[in-house]
Amino acid sequence: MIEQVTAYFLELQKSICDNLAAVDGAAEFSLEQIRPPTGGLAQPRVLADGAHIEKAAVQFTHSVGASLPPAATARNPHLAGCPFQATAISLIVHPRNPHVPITHMNLRFFYVEADEPSWYFGGGYDLTPCYPVDEDIVRWHSAAKAATGDHYPALKSACDDYFYLSHRGETRGVGGIFFDDWTNGGFEQSLEFVKGVGDSFEPTYLPIFHARMKTPFTEQERDFQLYRRGRYAEFNLALDRGTAYGLQSGRRVESVLASLPPLVKWVYNYQPEAGSREAKLTEYYLKPQDWLKNSIKIS
Amino acid sequence: MIEQVTAYFLELQKSICDNLAAVDGAAEFSLEQIRPPTGGLAQPRVLADGAHIEKAAVQFTHSVGASLPPAATARNPHLAGCPFQATAISLIVHPRNPHVPITHMNLRFFYVEADEPSWYFGGGYDLTPCYPVDEDIVRWHSAAKAATGDHYPALKSACDDYFYLSHRGETRGVGGIFFDDWTNGGFEQSLEFVKGVGDSFEPTYLPIFHARMKTPFTEQERDFQLYRRGRYAEFNLALDRGTAYGLQSGRRVESVLASLPPLVKWVYNYQPEAGSREAKLTEYYLKPQDWLKNSIKIS
Repeated sequence: MIEQVTAYFLELQKSICDNLAAVDGAAEFSLEQIRPPTGGLAQPRVLADGAHIEKAAVQFTHSVGASLPPAATARNPHLAGCPFQATAISLIVHPRNPHVPITHMNLRFFYVEADEPSWYFGGGYDLTPCYPVDEDIVRWHSAAKAATGDHYPALKSACDDYFYLSHRGETRGVGGIFFDDWTNGGFEQSLEFVKGVGDSFEPTYLPIFHARMKTPFTEQERDFQLYRRGRYAEFNLALDRGTAYGLQSGRRVESVLASLPPLVKWVYNYQPEAGSREAKLTEYYLKPQDWLKNSIKIS
Repeated sequence: MIEQVTAYFLELQKSICDNLAAVDGAAEFSLEQIRPPTGGLAQPRVLADGAHIEKAAVQFTHSVGASLPPAATARNPHLAGCPFQATAISLIVHPRNPHVPITHMNLRFFYVEADEPSWYFGGGYDLTPCYPVDEDIVRWHSAAKAATGDHYPALKSACDDYFYLSHRGETRGVGGIFFDDWTNGGFEQSLEFVKGVGDSFEPTYLPIFHARMKTPFTEQERDFQLYRRGRYAEFNLALDRGTAYGLQSGRRVESVLASLPPLVKWVYNYQPEAGSREAKLTEYYLKPQDWLKNSIKIS
């Protein structure tokens, strides 16, 4: 199982890195391979200071553990102490142009070796624009729906719930899908489902990136982007369970924090002008909406 | 008691704001007064985009609560449900010049009304340079020692312990002092102690600011400053108990997060050049040191 999932994640990592580098046209992804003595592989790839991509991190990790900590299996105490493996691809893109949305995707597989092995998938993707374009949001959510079918409403809600900054009363962005403990229909069917999600990312995000990357922007719009990136840092550092787990468990810090924005502004008590696009972002777009309600299907 | 402490904190806030604005010479502190219907006063004051101070927040808060939550008094369960008050001054200074250290100070007083009232002080200050100057560190710690006397070693250690980024293996800066649950010698003596700490801040930090604010700096040094500010944001968002409590308890977000740096860079896998000042910062200065060990007293 691990081999099949790992092969797919590595292939997806390569494809995404190649295509993002092509979109950027100037910078390349780094390629590191870290092989822990206990087995597995960490392969973080980062593109920094590109022409259109200010920072992108596309990371593959396969970790091998000799003994599952009891805290990790509260629901299945009989698995404590068993050998386990986890494999994941995780990506984030911070575009330079404030009209191109930030995106994040994570797909992961967890496997515990035991008499009766235990495994599950998790993951999802979400989109975080500063200057949302309705057409892009509909494209994004249509792809998410196409990839997840009947599960879309539940996974869309789970995404809105997870990427929520309660102290701000805002979602992180316009959402997407989020799933965990996924075993639906058994391994083969679950892997197909995860591949469907993974394969839908590039044909959805890359056209949005292309469509907005040459939109002219003002210094004020750039400032607003740097300001909004502060929310991203707030979420990742103060709220994200993955980051907290990564920092506490002693994972490689630079990998855990590779998602942080390249440049961020915190402005005390910033208030957007009434009726502005900046005001509409928080008033409308960063509240959960049924984006596909009235939309015409975009092919 | 609350009145005496409040009067001192308000006076200290005014003095610090006046003197920091004078040092800056260009920008002024805002003045807001927020009076909750339940009583008390929040008076956040912020200076932004100054000539020498990029951001400073000096906040006074006096909050009045009708009923102490049980979680707040685990050690004294008989106080749960009692009316309580808390008053605090909290400040942070983010200088523009990378040769001027960031500083932070907090002084607070907590009081529970009951048949046998309960109260304590807490607080401290710490210094976070990017390009440390030994003379400044000795001045800082000499002042801390003069203000806290025999308690200095314990309070200095407590500061090193609290402002520690375990995921980086670094202290936040070169430390200072940190105390909590302070009731030594009763109220009058404790208030004198806290006044001693508060009064020692300006005559120590302002000369350091003056001495370094005109040091010429390169673009590379400015970049390093923005990079190091990332550690400040990591500490405040991911580790600081005060921030976590503030965000969870629904305090005014802009006040809780006023300490965040104005502009921050996260650079993936940055490695300073061997033997550089940037390398020496983490290798030596951000490990707890006995700064006063071999120092000549600086008057």
